[in-house]
Amino acid sequence: MRPELQQRVLDAVARLGYRRNENARSIRPGQHSGLIGVAITNIGNPYYGNFALGVEEVAAERGRRVLLGNTGEDLDRERQLVSDFVGRQVEGLIVVPSGPSGEHLRAEALGGLPVVLASRQVGGIDADAVLLDDVEGARQATERLVALGHERIAFLGNNVSMFTAGRRYEGFRRALEAAGIAEDPALASAGQQDLEAARAAMTRLLDLAEPPTAVFAANNRNTIGALQVIARRLADGRLAEAPALASFDDVELIEFVPAPTVVVSHDARELGGIAARMLFERLDGFDGPPRFVELPVSVQA
Amino acid sequence: MRPELQQRVLDAVARLGYRRNENARSIRPGQHSGLIGVAITNIGNPYYGNFALGVEEVAAERGRRVLLGNTGEDLDRERQLVSDFVGRQVEGLIVVPSGPSGEHLRAEALGGLPVVLASRQVGGIDADAVLLDDVEGARQATERLVALGHERIAFLGNNVSMFTAGRRYEGFRRALEAAGIAEDPALASAGQQDLEAARAAMTRLLDLAEPPTAVFAANNRNTIGALQVIARRLADGRLAEAPALASFDDVELIEFVPAPTVVVSHDARELGGIAARMLFERLDGFDGPPRFVELPVSVQA
Repeated sequence: MRPELQQRVLDAVARLGYRRNENARSIRPGQHSGLIGVAITNIGNPYYGNFALGVEEVAAERGRRVLLGNTGEDLDRERQLVSDFVGRQVEGLIVVPSGPSGEHLRAEALGGLPVVLASRQVGGIDADAVLLDDVEGARQATERLVALGHERIAFLGNNVSMFTAGRRYEGFRRALEAAGIAEDPALASAGQQDLEAARAAMTRLLDLAEPPTAVFAANNRNTIGALQVIARRLADGRLAEAPALASFDDVELIEFVPAPTVVVSHDARELGGIAARMLFERLDGFDGPPRFVELPVSVQA
Repeated sequence: MRPELQQRVLDAVARLGYRRNENARSIRPGQHSGLIGVAITNIGNPYYGNFALGVEEVAAERGRRVLLGNTGEDLDRERQLVSDFVGRQVEGLIVVPSGPSGEHLRAEALGGLPVVLASRQVGGIDADAVLLDDVEGARQATERLVALGHERIAFLGNNVSMFTAGRRYEGFRRALEAAGIAEDPALASAGQQDLEAARAAMTRLLDLAEPPTAVFAANNRNTIGALQVIARRLADGRLAEAPALASFDDVELIEFVPAPTVVVSHDARELGGIAARMLFERLDGFDGPPRFVELPVSVQA
């Protein structure tokens, strides 16, 4: 091309605000879509908002964009979402799995696309995974409640058949066992996925003939729901003293709760960043066996 | 194609887990990419997490996927992100604008793609917009503080040159004016985008010779930062009594704060859903002038 023609083309391109068609590029052989599919169970939960932020930041550094989908803890929606992501030629996936079944996450189902499981694992899926150290965090937090002299300690959590809740229940159980405290089945309440369910569970516990003197809440929704009930009963005088509380997940303003509190802190943004970096290592050619990373948590009383 | 051959092809397709290449479809004339570009200022803030959830839910109902980008309140990142979204052939954009400049959001810059501005507007951009009723929410909340007898009321917010903070400051100012209270410039502190800055601003206010007796915090980051300082000073005895607090944005556990509190509540998920519906109306062919929706807020003491 003659130089003056080339310049005219470049001028025209600038004038027209021409942009490369990224999708057209993506389907040329050997090119990449530049997309990472991210399936999250509840983007409205601040834990997952920060997780998504961590993924997005690392993806942006690598020139990739995040296709975000919310599964609402629904396995069918997760299956559809993963299938849709694959159909859109994502380069890889990061999934917070919503349930114990994961056929759709098998390497064959994904056509060999790399996937990183985050926050939770799924039995039978040999994929990279990054989790919090759930067992140890729950064990240490419960241990703190025991050290404060509590023996009637309630457990509030998601369904324990879910990977994370099961691990946190295991840590809770180990701390009781180490202290020689027999579990009281009436004090364990699982299956609460939202504030409303958490409030109902805490209400039931406080209405027991012999209510718990301390509560271990296995995630921020259970912590907040329990504390909402406690606040209401303190305000109307039905509760003289708030039970001690341990929360897996930091929650803001917990410093105002008029009771001993223990918090299991961690960095959801860092978890998201690590998940993204593990995925990019696969995209960069790392071909080793699945890796399993447990992110440490810190327990503060 | 002969029926038995057709069946063999279909069987092979099923066996191979074949999926339509959604990106290849997208670049055929008359086809759609099925992508919506969403640019958010801070996905780690629970307000925007819920906003993103509302967008995602409506997009999923319409078979669209969300391309999510975080701008971190940085106008350059927003420009890059919008350009990248357009290059990826999104069908439309939803943008929480990060600054007062919006050349990159003009219809010409977007090649005619529809855009909906959410939470904030940008001067000179004729686009659909959905906002909270910031002025009225801030006015009513401040009015409640005045009704409690307060005259030294501080303002904590983002930079007032930002659209939302400016509107909330306007509502705050109107309530003072209506009550015949002269503004004290020493009590207004703007520009705090994160918890650290909010804590520093609240610390300065409490260290004034004549500190405020009440605080209007114009968003959840300023509310939490202010309350963290108040909690610390109540605990170490440097503060005898917490100032009254009005918060634009609901924050969890505020019921434990030992002071009168006023909360301006709204539904970020609903705001996201409305933004998405406005965009889909454009995609469905609505061609009227830009619409401006102000979502009502509710003020609870």
